[in-house]
Amino acid sequence: MMSPLFTLLTDFGAGSGYPAQVKAVLLSAIPDARIVDISHEVPRFDVSAGALLLEACVPRFPDGTIHVAVVDPGVGTARRALCVVDAGGRRLVGPDNGLLEPFLGPGARVHRIAAGPDAALPEPEAATFHGRDLFAPAAVLLAQGAAPGRLGPPVADPVRLAWPAASRAGAAVEGEALAADPFGNLVTSIRARDLGAAGPAGVRGAEVDGRAARWVRTFGEGGPGELLVLLGSGGRVEVAVREGSAAAALGRARGVRVRLVLAG
Amino acid sequence: MMSPLFTLLTDFGAGSGYPAQVKAVLLSAIPDARIVDISHEVPRFDVSAGALLLEACVPRFPDGTIHVAVVDPGVGTARRALCVVDAGGRRLVGPDNGLLEPFLGPGARVHRIAAGPDAALPEPEAATFHGRDLFAPAAVLLAQGAAPGRLGPPVADPVRLAWPAASRAGAAVEGEALAADPFGNLVTSIRARDLGAAGPAGVRGAEVDGRAARWVRTFGEGGPGELLVLLGSGGRVEVAVREGSAAAALGRARGVRVRLVLAG
Amino acid sequence: MMSPLFTLLTDFGAGSGYPAQVKAVLLSAIPDARIVDISHEVPRFDVSAGALLLEACVPRFPDGTIHVAVVDPGVGTARRALCVVDAGGRRLVGPDNGLLEPFLGPGARVHRIAAGPDAALPEPEAATFHGRDLFAPAAVLLAQGAAPGRLGPPVADPVRLAWPAASRAGAAVEGEALAADPFGNLVTSIRARDLGAAGPAGVRGAEVDGRAARWVRTFGEGGPGELLVLLGSGGRVEVAVREGSAAAALGRARGVRVRLVLAG
Repeated sequence: MMSPLFTLLTDFGAGSGYPAQVKAVLLSAIPDARIVDISHEVPRFDVSAGALLLEACVPRFPDGTIHVAVVDPGVGTARRALCVVDAGGRRLVGPDNGLLEPFLGPGARVHRIAAGPDAALPEPEAATFHGRDLFAPAAVLLAQGAAPGRLGPPVADPVRLAWPAASRAGAAVEGEALAADPFGNLVTSIRARDLGAAGPAGVRGAEVDGRAARWVRTFGEGGPGELLVLLGSGGRVEVAVREGSAAAALGRARGVRVRLVLAG
Repeated sequence: MMSPLFTLLTDFGAGSGYPAQVKAVLLSAIPDARIVDISHEVPRFDVSAGALLLEACVPRFPDGTIHVAVVDPGVGTARRALCVVDAGGRRLVGPDNGLLEPFLGPGARVHRIAAGPDAALPEPEAATFHGRDLFAPAAVLLAQGAAPGRLGPPVADPVRLAWPAASRAGAAVEGEALAADPFGNLVTSIRARDLGAAGPAGVRGAEVDGRAARWVRTFGEGGPGELLVLLGSGGRVEVAVREGSAAAALGRARGVRVRLVLAG
Repeated sequence: MMSPLFTLLTDFGAGSGYPAQVKAVLLSAIPDARIVDISHEVPRFDVSAGALLLEACVPRFPDGTIHVAVVDPGVGTARRALCVVDAGGRRLVGPDNGLLEPFLGPGARVHRIAAGPDAALPEPEAATFHGRDLFAPAAVLLAQGAAPGRLGPPVADPVRLAWPAASRAGAAVEGEALAADPFGNLVTSIRARDLGAAGPAGVRGAEVDGRAARWVRTFGEGGPGELLVLLGSGGRVEVAVREGSAAAALGRARGVRVRLVLAG
């Protein structure tokens, strides 16, 4: 049998030593663990940016992968720790603050990760490092075959992100930027499915914060500095500037409005 | 048999989630793949800097390694995708924009990576992410034993970088900086073999942009702030400032002139 | 038998290509090597910061792990190269400049790593890259079963860091910041054991550079911008600012004074 595969997503910073300590826990328990870093450079405490990265990356990994996600401003407070199994069978562990939002849809099963004398896991050694002391040990248990229910009781009301949905207005679809990626591209609330049956080929025009922008298939079609709108590789409409940063060009990221005119 | 070894070099940013998606493709097809990151911090779209990194790193890896290189401002446009097998048998995939320059010398075999109904690979899912949707699948095919010709037809005229050669002028050799490394060291067009039979021990003096500089064996020999010239670990002459950045000290990188006086 | 596990800690920069070349050496000799990056973002030449990271991370790894540490402003000069086996059996290689300080206590065995015709290892290929050409090959020998004495003669006087000890003054313990972590948290000379039998629960008050600060269990307890003091996950008292940088707030890192009042 192939050895367990884990992914890690945090805002720790790759060079901080914290991701290495998480890996040390995994490798101490499962010497042949395979570990892939999704990112350790999520903007600090930016739960929404972390959730968008998970949405884009997690579905690409093989069935059976266990995803450890820690963007956790509330570490050590009363916020719950969660294990989520989504409708597709994907397994994730992370804090109950919306970070796992993309996997909380219909069919998701959510359990609390409990710790202490009556739980499968011991109290975390440090109050400030649940990535190492709670989430990594929970991932180890899952990899060793534990059912999510072994980690703690079901949770009916996980914290959700209030991501605005795209809205249809006649022949147009409107949305807004949820976060910027590291290039300054803005990832929006408009998804591929919101473009209608014709898909990206049916988009006739684009506006960003009321300014005309150019709908393109790929960055290379834009002129330098030009404001571009395109369907990103993660399945969401993005705002970009060729060889530049849309976030810098617009002076902000979250909340930037995008409007697309679709073919009749 | 040992599992396939892949290296990745991109300008995606390690924390962007894009390298992780490339790894997900490799691991989905080849669960025991070994993957080493050369860099995901190539300055964005800096094909020359990426090529120098490949030159320094690729030859260090074991025979059989497959190298995936993506610094690709033209992604999604008409630029070709390439598979290169150099005279030493090294296998690389990457865009046809000069990124693979160090491996395009005599004896190299170059093939296009085709995609579509008549090709071994399907059309890329996203127009903007050939690293995930074209180059990684091509690397998988190679690792599974496909010959390069299976990926597409031969290419006779790959795009080359116009790297200036070092030139000999009497007892001196002259060259120029091609790119800066992340420390601000300047990597030049003068290679170890340009230093003549005496090698680095035969260098008698150095000038940088007409200013006297100090030829040293190692950084530790320089005074703080002093402009140093030395033979770098990648086999090219470099300009450095001890505990500082030569690029910052000189106000620029590419094109800085270097002149070395060699022993009679 | 499980394949050898190596960790790497350097100030090379993850994207510089230098860590990849170190990994190429390890994988060329030991194809099934497992390799974990502790950090390649140690502030350049900051031996003390590197030593603190090793202290926090190394003990978390399984027995038998071989740790390669290179923060080495003196590379290529007369500084010695060391192999250290600490009292707990942990094996490390690195320069003799204090980087391995946390493992040089009582019971440590220290050997020089020699190179040249009479030594187990050949002369380094490049004077500027002992990580690739000396420390990685030494780690390979250790992984292949060589005793440390095979690398070179014993060293009785390794370079030590002059880390100030915490001092007790009546009911108070005093110390100072040794380095900042990447978040700007200050890591101090006060360790968990300096807090006395009551541990962190027995701390009654905190001062930072003479200013009142708040002793907390976790970051989440502080108000935004508030100066916090807590026992960090690495076993040392740290100074932090919630969702901010203590180093920035205080205008400096090393030498910041911390005073804790303990319960009678």
